Amino acid sequence: MANITKKVSWSSRADESGVTAEGTPLLNGSEQPRPSRQLSRDGIFQVGRLSTVDLEEEMTSEEESLRGRPKEIPHNEKLLSLKFESLDYDNIENQLFLEEERRMSYMGFRCLEISRWVVCGLIGFLTGLIACFIDIAVEELAGMKYRVVKENIDNFTEVGGLSISLILWAVLNSAIVMMGAILVAFFEPIAAGSGIPQIKCYLNGVKIPRVVRLKTLVVKVCGVICSVVGGLAVGKEGPMIHSGAVVAAGVSQGRSTSLKRDFKIFEYFRRDTEKRDFVSAGAAAGVSAAFGAPVGGVLFSLEEGASFWNQMLTWRIFFASMISTFTLNFFLSFYHNKPGDLSNPGLINFGRFESDSGAYNLYEIPLFIAMGAFGGLLGALFNKLNYWLTIFRIRYVHRPCLQVMEAMLVAAVTAAVSFTMIYFSNDCQPLGSENKEKYPLQLFCADGEYNSMATIFFNTPEISVRSLFHTQAGTYDPLTLSLFTITYFFLACWTYGLAVSAGVFIPALLIGAAWGRLFGILLASITPNGSIWADPGKYALIGAAAQLGGVVRMTLSLTVIMMEATGNVTYGLPIMLVLMTAKIVGDYFVEGLYDIHIKLQSVPFLHWDAPATSHWLTAREVMSAPVTCLNRIEKVGTIVDVLSNTSTNHNGFPVVMQGADSDEPSKLCGLILRSQLIVLLKHKVFVELARSRLTQRKLQLKDFRDAYPRFPPIQSIHVSQDERECMMDLTEFMNATPYTVPLETSLPRVFKLFRALGLRHLVVADDVNRVVGLVTRKDLARYHLGSHGLEELQLAQT
Amino acid sequence: MANITKKVSWSSRADESGVTAEGTPLLNGSEQPRPSRQLSRDGIFQVGRLSTVDLEEEMTSEEESLRGRPKEIPHNEKLLSLKFESLDYDNIENQLFLEEERRMSYMGFRCLEISRWVVCGLIGFLTGLIACFIDIAVEELAGMKYRVVKENIDNFTEVGGLSISLILWAVLNSAIVMMGAILVAFFEPIAAGSGIPQIKCYLNGVKIPRVVRLKTLVVKVCGVICSVVGGLAVGKEGPMIHSGAVVAAGVSQGRSTSLKRDFKIFEYFRRDTEKRDFVSAGAAAGVSAAFGAPVGGVLFSLEEGASFWNQMLTWRIFFASMISTFTLNFFLSFYHNKPGDLSNPGLINFGRFESDSGAYNLYEIPLFIAMGAFGGLLGALFNKLNYWLTIFRIRYVHRPCLQVMEAMLVAAVTAAVSFTMIYFSNDCQPLGSENKEKYPLQLFCADGEYNSMATIFFNTPEISVRSLFHTQAGTYDPLTLSLFTITYFFLACWTYGLAVSAGVFIPALLIGAAWGRLFGILLASITPNGSIWADPGKYALIGAAAQLGGVVRMTLSLTVIMMEATGNVTYGLPIMLVLMTAKIVGDYFVEGLYDIHIKLQSVPFLHWDAPATSHWLTAREVMSAPVTCLNRIEKVGTIVDVLSNTSTNHNGFPVVMQGADSDEPSKLCGLILRSQLIVLLKHKVFVELARSRLTQRKLQLKDFRDAYPRFPPIQSIHVSQDERECMMDLTEFMNATPYTVPLETSLPRVFKLFRALGLRHLVVADDVNRVVGLVTRKDLARYHLGSHGLEELQLAQT
Repeated sequence: MANITKKVSWSSRADESGVTAEGTPLLNGSEQPRPSRQLSRDGIFQVGRLSTVDLEEEMTSEEESLRGRPKEIPHNEKLLSLKFESLDYDNIENQLFLEEERRMSYMGFRCLEISRWVVCGLIGFLTGLIACFIDIAVEELAGMKYRVVKENIDNFTEVGGLSISLILWAVLNSAIVMMGAILVAFFEPIAAGSGIPQIKCYLNGVKIPRVVRLKTLVVKVCGVICSVVGGLAVGKEGPMIHSGAVVAAGVSQGRSTSLKRDFKIFEYFRRDTEKRDFVSAGAAAGVSAAFGAPVGGVLFSLEEGASFWNQMLTWRIFFASMISTFTLNFFLSFYHNKPGDLSNPGLINFGRFESDSGAYNLYEIPLFIAMGAFGGLLGALFNKLNYWLTIFRIRYVHRPCLQVMEAMLVAAVTAAVSFTMIYFSNDCQPLGSENKEKYPLQLFCADGEYNSMATIFFNTPEISVRSLFHTQAGTYDPLTLSLFTITYFFLACWTYGLAVSAGVFIPALLIGAAWGRLFGILLASITPNGSIWADPGKYALIGAAAQLGGVVRMTLSLTVIMMEATGNVTYGLPIMLVLMTAKIVGDYFVEGLYDIHIKLQSVPFLHWDAPATSHWLTAREVMSAPVTCLNRIEKVGTIVDVLSNTSTNHNGFPVVMQGADSDEPSKLCGLILRSQLIVLLKHKVFVELARSRLTQRKLQLKDFRDAYPRFPPIQSIHVSQDERECMMDLTEFMNATPYTVPLETSLPRVFKLFRALGLRHLVVADDVNRVVGLVTRKDLARYHLGSHGLEELQLAQT
Repeated sequence: MANITKKVSWSSRADESGVTAEGTPLLNGSEQPRPSRQLSRDGIFQVGRLSTVDLEEEMTSEEESLRGRPKEIPHNEKLLSLKFESLDYDNIENQLFLEEERRMSYMGFRCLEISRWVVCGLIGFLTGLIACFIDIAVEELAGMKYRVVKENIDNFTEVGGLSISLILWAVLNSAIVMMGAILVAFFEPIAAGSGIPQIKCYLNGVKIPRVVRLKTLVVKVCGVICSVVGGLAVGKEGPMIHSGAVVAAGVSQGRSTSLKRDFKIFEYFRRDTEKRDFVSAGAAAGVSAAFGAPVGGVLFSLEEGASFWNQMLTWRIFFASMISTFTLNFFLSFYHNKPGDLSNPGLINFGRFESDSGAYNLYEIPLFIAMGAFGGLLGALFNKLNYWLTIFRIRYVHRPCLQVMEAMLVAAVTAAVSFTMIYFSNDCQPLGSENKEKYPLQLFCADGEYNSMATIFFNTPEISVRSLFHTQAGTYDPLTLSLFTITYFFLACWTYGLAVSAGVFIPALLIGAAWGRLFGILLASITPNGSIWADPGKYALIGAAAQLGGVVRMTLSLTVIMMEATGNVTYGLPIMLVLMTAKIVGDYFVEGLYDIHIKLQSVPFLHWDAPATSHWLTAREVMSAPVTCLNRIEKVGTIVDVLSNTSTNHNGFPVVMQGADSDEPSKLCGLILRSQLIVLLKHKVFVELARSRLTQRKLQLKDFRDAYPRFPPIQSIHVSQDERECMMDLTEFMNATPYTVPLETSLPRVFKLFRALGLRHLVVADDVNRVVGLVTRKDLARYHLGSHGLEELQLAQT
């Protein structure tokens, strides 16, 4: 029987790799990147099918990797980078921690809980304010620009010489975009794009360097204003999520490392567990401010981040979201001269879809599903093109000045294309009283009419989306819409990934709304009884959902965001079906846009479940072995050597204890982190010193919190030769009860434990509690279901 | 230092209890109920402060506990019943399971996933149909009743003799309620009430007997129709959640044990993990159908049930919810003669609150919060009264016939009170064209007018709620509203807990809407510029939220449900603040209504986190020890004896293996469940038999699935004296990689592991992997924060 032979071959493999594992854990055992292995669908390894990747090509110079150029992105998604650290969502329950918790009274816990609420309220408030600032700045600056250009065009339409207008428009756009691009490319490259992939990674538990710093926030906010005002095919919504996350990371720590200010508050929250919770709240507040969708925000955070569902946390996240959308709404109501009118939450609001007019019918659902499939196809095309473009950029456009020039080029081309489209369009519409065009371009239209192509090109994309959803049938003619769809599709695709901070939500919605509306118009014209399809806005909404779903492949949170942005439960089912179809169709060809960019950065991203066919693998195969262990009372020199070993660069070390009997094997008794050892070394917590200086103050949890999160590198800590001979007692500082699994635990089981508890290190122990291996994030993220079945990614130091 | 002395006293305690723990695990060690201990807020045990509970008083006769009378509820919430089993949310990864998973191809997993979606679709569809059936039945029957009574009243108003109308009304109500009460009291007592407490427990992981059976569903549906038609102060919404859950449990198993039909489909889903997931979907579909709130339904399920957040599961739950509300909406649109109009999702719809008219202002928020506090107070009063009533009922009204009589009495009193209120009311309103009164009672009003008290009393509660929310200012006079609030408050309180199936959502909303509207009217009359408070409907909404929040204390899901039912994001923040205030104020006095009823049943319910001040406790104190262990190859006789031991009645047994050396201690090597052992015994999987009957078919996972979930008791399995001497090899069937924790793990850490993975048994092992204890649900649920700090509940066999 095939089944038995498989089992035999497996156990023989296990024996091979188990040779070292059975021995006593070694000190300083360095871990080599493993050869690439690949598993076929039924689980047998097939070595060598994957072409070996030239590692040298991927290596970037030290200086470049420090500056964080996109060059450090290895352009091969079959690699997994080892440079990303994980967040520690599991509390480090060492003696210090337990003592602190035990000292705390019930009232103390209540106060902590209240301060968590206060922090969430602050996060919501500040995120709302930032959204408000971005909105007003964009509206004012864009208004100024459009007025100047419109005046110019109006002047030159009669006398001729519109090419001057074109040049004016293009130069204005390029100049504004240049400012944004310079900020991003030269000062903070991580602020490029929407930031959603980075926040996804952070919420997943990967520490992306500099992603939640104040500087990033400032660059992001200024950058997004420049890109939107500069007329690029981008939206201001995506970056809100990143902004909210930065606000959360800053506020919750009660200090700013960049500004060197410590407010001495919220010190309890200075650890990964609490910080990650607050960042979820910040991301949710960002979504909520962007789309006026507090519930959608909560679901976004949960979909991307949560592993363990915690009711109080969810409730706080919801509170932050509510405050954020409320703040935005409240301040914008003053800006719009309707003080106290709280009916317009969110930066973009799709406007109310009246359900009185019949909403939709059962027989329209197949049509919606077909639109979903089409959206999936178009989305896949978008992603594939953007993937190639990104690889091209990684190879050839990695210098900041080149990036700025590319951004300026895109801005100029966008202006030129828009101008050409408007120029050659003959689609004139009467300028009625209901058409609240902000900048109606008359151009060559008769008096009292305006150019309808200009409505979608000569406006911020948010206004164009609303216009496509809500203007009555007949406002746009089919030719306008098809031309617009095609040009905007390529412009948006080119724009995403530029060194400017901007989002892809709105462009995707706009493309979808355009072809959706086109579909609605065509449907009405080919059916005999056209009146029942009378509302092309409905199809615009479905098209927008389909296109966005096809590009980003979010499902649950996106459905709720769309539902909340339309303020309508009725369209819930069709939107959901459309998003599902778009995801299924799109996934057949290529992954979602965010996932592509995450993979291109080789981030060890953990998905929700282990790959379905991975029951073949056990902890024995998955774990890293041999493990660098430390003794409970260890020589300082050994610790310094272990930490300085750049070839391994481990972050967690199991602590073992020699049995009373000398030939008894040493048993696991705890786990200690690099960051803790660094603090211990810095404070010189050596046994000999403790004896000599009895008055010395005991190291407290506060010392660890003060060093968090930027622990100094080992190189910066000076340990003299004498001190190297001292001993360190780790008992008090190690986590004495790390989670362990036996060698035979299946990968899905290991995965579930790891994911549900947000672990960073999981010790694999044998049946007498000896350490035989260590499972970390990269060990689990390595396995994924590729087109050839279960595949194993390579590990790379970059 | 106090801290050190505490530590010393703790370790000495630990040594005491650790004496047996250090020894080799005993066979058949019976676990005695522990003496009640109580911890003060800073963690020191204070023995004897809690008065010892008379256990004998709580014991019920075997026959009674089998029939499931409410008598089996011990009326002391300081007890924790041992009779409730836990669900096993963790997969039992034994060899059989792993072999099956490994045999399955990638396509197999895809098919499974698709069938999960099909099942969820079916759940949604059937739940929607049931909701539709209930709605139509209630509307038709109640309409018939109201027409008869109205005709009678109209006749007798002129000629005098309205007492005949009163008698007619009271008799009609009593008769209808009697039918429902007989069904519930005599056929399926578990169908009483809304079923939400039971479903909360099930989703929490407690197996409540008979709660998801077909018979329960039938009784529930018929019962709820009778109670609503019978004019009780109840709603038809709560029971939908229970109905959805039953549908899910039935459909997902592909068979009905009650009907003895096995469709041979979905056999893979016949285990606790999958079933619990589907039941979450069913509960969500129920909420969704009841309130037209698909997102609220998902959040309800997650709030109550989920511990580990699984994206695909959440997405499926959402799908079931969507289908459910869509199905209901679709079929009801035909019933209401507006085919295809999908704008009325849900059994109750609060109607659109127009936000154009300014919605609310910032300065109204303190008013809303005050209303929330008032709602919390009223809710606490409601709960306290209902608590005393429930204890009274447990003591004196436990016979079915008494229960039926009480229900009839309540129905008659409700009719009498309503009649009296209407009779003495002088609040006449003009019968305008916009007032779409279904059954306007003229009574003593002038022609063309109607009695406005009758609008709220002479209608199903759902219609009354809508009327309070939306009729224009001036429809109700303050006296009417205050009288109504008071009478309805006591009626609803008396009604909840009767032996009829009915929900408390709508009555609570109605009470709140009444006093909220009253508050709005008073506000408008005392302020100089009354016009800005012109809309009393807004205050009715806030009052309804406050009252409901004060009674049930749900937060997150309730906010979303209310937001979806009003179709408005704008009111999200006030509703949230109101619900939070109501919860905080209410929790100060007494727990939520559902929690009270759960506690009165002594269910070992696990909350979200361990009590805040429980870091003092470790696995050593929490675990049950000594543990009954089995050897990997164990004598059949021993197994039968262990299973038959009624004094312990354990459900999980660690499996140990003797080391090669005889004085080496036996090590943990697996965990096996009672249900598995029962199946093994039933199929006589004995080592000797396997040798003699080589052709015998191997026991498969299917055999375990076929026996699920009603495993026979050990008494029904006959094992001969010869067979008792045989051996059983458990290797293949035990879970070889159970989760373990060391002795020193703190309670919060144990709790988190247990909760996040939905465990049933957690083995406590020492540093050489010997079994020293076992942590189960009851060990964790025992500790709770009472008014005197950390308290420990007593365990009782009942």
